[in-house]
Amino acid sequence: MTKYVYMFTEGNAGMKNLLGGKGANLAEMTGLGLPVPRGFTISTEACTRYYEDGKIIAAEIEKEIFETLAKTEENVGKKLGDARNPFLVSVRSGARASMPGMMDTILNLGLNDEVVKGLAALTGNERFAYDSYRRFITMFSDVVMEIDKSKYEKVFDAVKEEKGAKLDTDLDAEGMKEVVRRYLSVYQVNKGEPFPQDPKIQLMESVKAVFRSWNNERAILYRRMNDIPGSWGTAVNIQEMVYGNMGDTSGTGVAFTRNPATGEKKLYGEFLMNAQGEDVVAGIRTPQTIDQLASVMPEVYEQFAKTAEKLENHYKDMQDMEFTIERGQLFMLQTRNGKRTAAAAMKVAVDMVKEGLNTKEEAIMKLDPKQLDALLHPTFDPAALKAATPISRGLPASPGAASGEVYFSAEDATKAAEEGKKVLLVRLETSPEDLAGMNVAQGILTGRGGMTSHAAVVARGMGKCCVSGCSDLIIKEEEKYFQTPDGKRFNEGDCISLDGTTGIVYSGNIATQEASLSGDFRTIMDWSDEFRTMKVRTNADTVRDANVAFELGAQGIGLCRTEHMFFEEERIFAFRQMIVAKSEEARRKALAKILPYQQGGFEGLFKAMKGYPVTIRLLDPPLHEFLPQNADDIEELAGALNMRSCDLKDIIESLHELNPMLGHRGCRLAVTYPEIAEMQTTAIIAAAIAVNREGGPKVIPEIMIPLVCELKELKFVKDIIVKTADALIAQSGIEMPYHVGTMIEIPRAALTADEIATEAEFFSFGTNDLTQMTYGLSRDDAGKILDAYYQKKIFESDPTARLDTVGVGKLMQIATEAGRKTRPDIKLGICGEHGGDPSSVHFCNTLNFSYVSCSPFRVPIARLAAAQAAILQRK
Amino acid sequence: MTKYVYMFTEGNAGMKNLLGGKGANLAEMTGLGLPVPRGFTISTEACTRYYEDGKIIAAEIEKEIFETLAKTEENVGKKLGDARNPFLVSVRSGARASMPGMMDTILNLGLNDEVVKGLAALTGNERFAYDSYRRFITMFSDVVMEIDKSKYEKVFDAVKEEKGAKLDTDLDAEGMKEVVRRYLSVYQVNKGEPFPQDPKIQLMESVKAVFRSWNNERAILYRRMNDIPGSWGTAVNIQEMVYGNMGDTSGTGVAFTRNPATGEKKLYGEFLMNAQGEDVVAGIRTPQTIDQLASVMPEVYEQFAKTAEKLENHYKDMQDMEFTIERGQLFMLQTRNGKRTAAAAMKVAVDMVKEGLNTKEEAIMKLDPKQLDALLHPTFDPAALKAATPISRGLPASPGAASGEVYFSAEDATKAAEEGKKVLLVRLETSPEDLAGMNVAQGILTGRGGMTSHAAVVARGMGKCCVSGCSDLIIKEEEKYFQTPDGKRFNEGDCISLDGTTGIVYSGNIATQEASLSGDFRTIMDWSDEFRTMKVRTNADTVRDANVAFELGAQGIGLCRTEHMFFEEERIFAFRQMIVAKSEEARRKALAKILPYQQGGFEGLFKAMKGYPVTIRLLDPPLHEFLPQNADDIEELAGALNMRSCDLKDIIESLHELNPMLGHRGCRLAVTYPEIAEMQTTAIIAAAIAVNREGGPKVIPEIMIPLVCELKELKFVKDIIVKTADALIAQSGIEMPYHVGTMIEIPRAALTADEIATEAEFFSFGTNDLTQMTYGLSRDDAGKILDAYYQKKIFESDPTARLDTVGVGKLMQIATEAGRKTRPDIKLGICGEHGGDPSSVHFCNTLNFSYVSCSPFRVPIARLAAAQAAILQRK
Repeated sequence: MTKYVYMFTEGNAGMKNLLGGKGANLAEMTGLGLPVPRGFTISTEACTRYYEDGKIIAAEIEKEIFETLAKTEENVGKKLGDARNPFLVSVRSGARASMPGMMDTILNLGLNDEVVKGLAALTGNERFAYDSYRRFITMFSDVVMEIDKSKYEKVFDAVKEEKGAKLDTDLDAEGMKEVVRRYLSVYQVNKGEPFPQDPKIQLMESVKAVFRSWNNERAILYRRMNDIPGSWGTAVNIQEMVYGNMGDTSGTGVAFTRNPATGEKKLYGEFLMNAQGEDVVAGIRTPQTIDQLASVMPEVYEQFAKTAEKLENHYKDMQDMEFTIERGQLFMLQTRNGKRTAAAAMKVAVDMVKEGLNTKEEAIMKLDPKQLDALLHPTFDPAALKAATPISRGLPASPGAASGEVYFSAEDATKAAEEGKKVLLVRLETSPEDLAGMNVAQGILTGRGGMTSHAAVVARGMGKCCVSGCSDLIIKEEEKYFQTPDGKRFNEGDCISLDGTTGIVYSGNIATQEASLSGDFRTIMDWSDEFRTMKVRTNADTVRDANVAFELGAQGIGLCRTEHMFFEEERIFAFRQMIVAKSEEARRKALAKILPYQQGGFEGLFKAMKGYPVTIRLLDPPLHEFLPQNADDIEELAGALNMRSCDLKDIIESLHELNPMLGHRGCRLAVTYPEIAEMQTTAIIAAAIAVNREGGPKVIPEIMIPLVCELKELKFVKDIIVKTADALIAQSGIEMPYHVGTMIEIPRAALTADEIATEAEFFSFGTNDLTQMTYGLSRDDAGKILDAYYQKKIFESDPTARLDTVGVGKLMQIATEAGRKTRPDIKLGICGEHGGDPSSVHFCNTLNFSYVSCSPFRVPIARLAAAQAAILQRK
Repeated sequence: MTKYVYMFTEGNAGMKNLLGGKGANLAEMTGLGLPVPRGFTISTEACTRYYEDGKIIAAEIEKEIFETLAKTEENVGKKLGDARNPFLVSVRSGARASMPGMMDTILNLGLNDEVVKGLAALTGNERFAYDSYRRFITMFSDVVMEIDKSKYEKVFDAVKEEKGAKLDTDLDAEGMKEVVRRYLSVYQVNKGEPFPQDPKIQLMESVKAVFRSWNNERAILYRRMNDIPGSWGTAVNIQEMVYGNMGDTSGTGVAFTRNPATGEKKLYGEFLMNAQGEDVVAGIRTPQTIDQLASVMPEVYEQFAKTAEKLENHYKDMQDMEFTIERGQLFMLQTRNGKRTAAAAMKVAVDMVKEGLNTKEEAIMKLDPKQLDALLHPTFDPAALKAATPISRGLPASPGAASGEVYFSAEDATKAAEEGKKVLLVRLETSPEDLAGMNVAQGILTGRGGMTSHAAVVARGMGKCCVSGCSDLIIKEEEKYFQTPDGKRFNEGDCISLDGTTGIVYSGNIATQEASLSGDFRTIMDWSDEFRTMKVRTNADTVRDANVAFELGAQGIGLCRTEHMFFEEERIFAFRQMIVAKSEEARRKALAKILPYQQGGFEGLFKAMKGYPVTIRLLDPPLHEFLPQNADDIEELAGALNMRSCDLKDIIESLHELNPMLGHRGCRLAVTYPEIAEMQTTAIIAAAIAVNREGGPKVIPEIMIPLVCELKELKFVKDIIVKTADALIAQSGIEMPYHVGTMIEIPRAALTADEIATEAEFFSFGTNDLTQMTYGLSRDDAGKILDAYYQKKIFESDPTARLDTVGVGKLMQIATEAGRKTRPDIKLGICGEHGGDPSSVHFCNTLNFSYVSCSPFRVPIARLAAAQAAILQRK
């Protein structure tokens, strides 16, 4: 039979999955002989069982709870509900991963009309006893019975006023008694029944409430943002109450073994004498810093400092501890690895290796790669952020923080930026035409589109903050305003702030802090490189991006999207001439104009990468993306192209597609217009020849064919490439190897990878498209659906942001195995947005990929994640 | 070492793959001791090798050809190029499957300036010799050297005029000599070199030309229309010439052992005395019927009739034979199973079983299921068709033939039909809003969309002819005309004709023949049912379709698209009220109005299917498909809905999707609006209860959840269904089982089928969507791409029409295995358009599916194909 309940003496820190973080650490501290109030933990399996059973606690579990309670009562020598010697407990949640403040807590459980009298007698402190009862009634009502807390607060304020009490502490015992009397009546009125007097009912209802709180809205959101599966469930800790509010020799506090903001090795924290934990949170009195405890209660401080050191050494990590002093006696209520800023994380990791506390591997494994974002992008000043007013929340599409005036078109944004304004570009969704506007903007906000929408991908490439899919804003681009759900309107020029790391949109300007890379950061990166086996490349289309990525450690370009080179005015005009051309000859003429630009662009990338491999993808997007859609722009372009606007309109109409993502794009363009592939190959090979001629590290270009679904299609395009390339190389008289490979981004390519590998020298998994097709879900249209899917617990994360290792992963595995069977030395990589997501990097490592490729600012994240994956896999 | 060349004495009829049909049958006839001119066959493997080697005949193959030639010369006692005793040969293509007229033939090879003199001396017929040389030069120039034939025809006409000859036969030997002289000079002028005198060069060039002809445009098109893989290649037959044009005791003819139009058992054919095969084709002289040969040359007729009987008995199938009589001696040049009309095919099959010539299995295996289309749909009168003018060619989206006046909107078409006109609906593409117009039309023509576009699918369901994706027509719906590539304009009311079986569009009216089902057809269907193991269901949404399908043998409904029930005026209005509803309450109110219609519809289907299973799919298409797109219609609807048109416009805009196929549809609708699934479940279950109460065969409804990609999503919707259904059933007091299953139409569902099967009681493979997502290719946008892909030999067939057993098939296999692992008795079926495609039916049989489901008029095809698959698999 499954055991569902564990005494603290039965567990240890290794049992986090079963006991939750808090429970496991309480057990561990108990085992270390530290002063921990006694208690027991109801396991996470009891929680999942509770949900499986249809939100019922099975009789066997209830029985086990009360048996364990009885044992605990025996140890403590008190009994729940015994008025003469009452056992009072706290009921606290505790999941496998820390989810601070997300779930619920009940304190002082066990009090009722009789027990409160006993407590008063026992402590000789009637006020304390009734204050505790009051607090219990409030918490139980709020957390377990969902009665609005404010109803109690009003009563409390009323009594204080009647009694002429200013502060809570001014209220005497009689006052507290009156409060309790009225509270009990508030409860009766709201629930239609008296406050439960049976402590066992109090206990079971509270346990259920904690289980329920696992699925409250903020917990679900937190889990999604932190990749915590909903299936884990929470444990419940039942623990003897100790009181920091029993007079001047009592107190409560929290402390870190090191400074969580800077990483400095020095106890850091605060405490409040004669108070309970919630008083610290409420912030009515100002707490003292932890050093001051040394003068207030020197012996307790000494004991605490030693305990802290012991815990840090034991856990080999910075600890975040809660403690209570009851009448001069120290109790440890919690310890856990402390959350810290990115900068602190770097420093702590490096210091602990220096101190001999951690090996390099251990230091690396303890870091959260995602945290590096904060080092690489500006963040809001925490103080300024506290005062800010959130107006909406979208998807955290590209990290960083930005404030500025809103503009609703690329043109307006550019104009404003030229006037020296800080601008934010706000669009329903962005298209390649918005690139110039995105470029000058501090940040981008869109109403539609997911984590891998155009706006998100481009913003990440630029290292620019972006909040996408803010679907509750009504954005009126033409009318130049947007409106929040509560009707507030923001016009062109109004200021807002975007947090691309959280997805929150604020009104007004908020002060930001610049990103800065410390020496510790560089040390961590160096260590990561020692361990990782996968290379990290970048997705870059411009020399600027390539240089940034190179600085951040990129070992080549995994994906250059050639179409991004067409967007400057002169180039896009030639490109449009190519699109509207009626004959191959006219197309070739237009392509000839683009050739020098492309070649120049490639030369720049080759030089920036200093001999590292550069993978260039042939033209991918459907041609209609390059043509205007609204009447005025069509008119204008027709004039420039010297054609009738009705003819241009016909062409645009004929290019219209119902499902462009599944349409005429990728290598299908090269099949229908081989001359495009010819021009691009010419540009790539000629650029490589030119750079090689200059000396320096040799360039070996990799040409990548996108959207392949069938071997013959790949072969057709490869033949064009090889013919063109070989002729150029022969003509140049130099020897230059080059490679031709393909994206694996269509399910059929993955399923027939054995065939595909007969022609492809490398596979680069395009997991953006692969995910969309495998799920049958367009990232641009997923916005509204995802919300419902999160709410209904069908999805826990956005599969376009975090690789689905089950379905998409299975396709990747099939393709990897089949590809290697045909071509054992085939080079495998990933160039989808997942390339910079740590859990996806881990998955790629299990498939023994050669490299992952991601946007420039994600390169450090990928380096660290790849090191962690390698260390993990070696074990 | 591979053997590439086979003497006729070395082969047999079983070697079709290697020798081609013609070669294998020539060898078989040789083996039977029939009078076959001697020769040999160059295998199909030589052809594929030719292409692999880059269009070169390898030296080893050339050597083998000349070695075999030498042996043949020895047998015949003549030598190629020997003027005194010349060996003259024909060079003919012959693929594995018959591709009549698609590839090239060269006759009289071996003639040159010397040999022709020898031939004249040997035959004592100078005119014949030079006529033969003339014919050879023409064919060699045309077929091998690609010199325009008309250049020779002009010369020939000129000589005839000069000589005062009216008919070819009026030209004497001197005239023929003159023709040859001038022909040689035409050749010299056009090729810049003299006509090749070396017969070995003539031979090798001709062999290459036949290999090349395998990939001429018409051959590629024919293969695509007949599902013949391009990888097969063609064989080449080199055979001693015999001459039907050596005087009055010579002749040539073709004959069938039975009447290919009716199936009647009686020699059927024609012959021409003193003529070569091409003269019969040219149609200058009128041939005599084969019976007349009995009086012209009784002994030869006797010999031929016996040979024909022998061949039919030997091949156990109706034979199509070519013969030549050279100076009184009969030679058999070819025999093959004769092509026949659908009606003849049925009669021959049934007769041959009666005659004891075939078993039922053999009879079934010899039928082409696709041919049944012709029995089920009207066809054009062949005589009328000959005179018709084709104006365009689209995709043969739904079989049948129709003539009528063109109309460009559903409204106009309906109005014209009400006035008693025969109308054809012409649209760029159709949407559900066009249903009424499609319903009254004789046929449908669209400019966009593939074999599984909306127009195609609906037309097939209605049994109505449809040509889709006619992309070379410029269709102007608003201006009410369309224009052909050569500028011809067809206005509203002009007449055209559509052949949905070939995809050809003709101008004007063409007389049609009605479909009729013979007793033989019914016999074949009964026999099929004896053998097949898979059930055949139908895709039907209306009682009319269900009745048609039931009559044609459907054993249930595999797919009822519930949304098709919303399109009548009153219903769609309520449905639109549902879509624009701002609250769940308002949505429920609108749904309540739809409920009785849905329930009534389901009751009709249940009754029509008389106890056979009925699978009903929950709402699938995106909601925006139900709302108008143009300003006038929006205005009108807003008025009817009593809302501001700008608000309605906002709603329509908010529903817009970039890739609707990958958007908010299928079970995603049920997740976001559970009340829709509730209403539909209520309608299904209430209908089943009502019909069961009436007595008669019991209804066991099957509810199908579409577009599932993830177990939890399926579970969420299934929970709604089960809760709703169980409550209704409990309330009714009767016992009624029902089943809940899912479509497998998203790759991820196939990849995670083991998980999906924990909740799904059945899988129905939706291969339309599964194919589109597996290929990353939208059927609605594939039109333009497919043409290039056929031309470049990347695709050989449209994967949305013919199941891709490699990629999509692999997913189906993965899903089938995984599904059965979880739930061994899981019911598996297919309800995509592939359900009615014979080769796809075969594939489903290999996966041991329970059933295939297809549109009503494809049911007989599926029954026959399933029987063939079962017989094949049993072997």
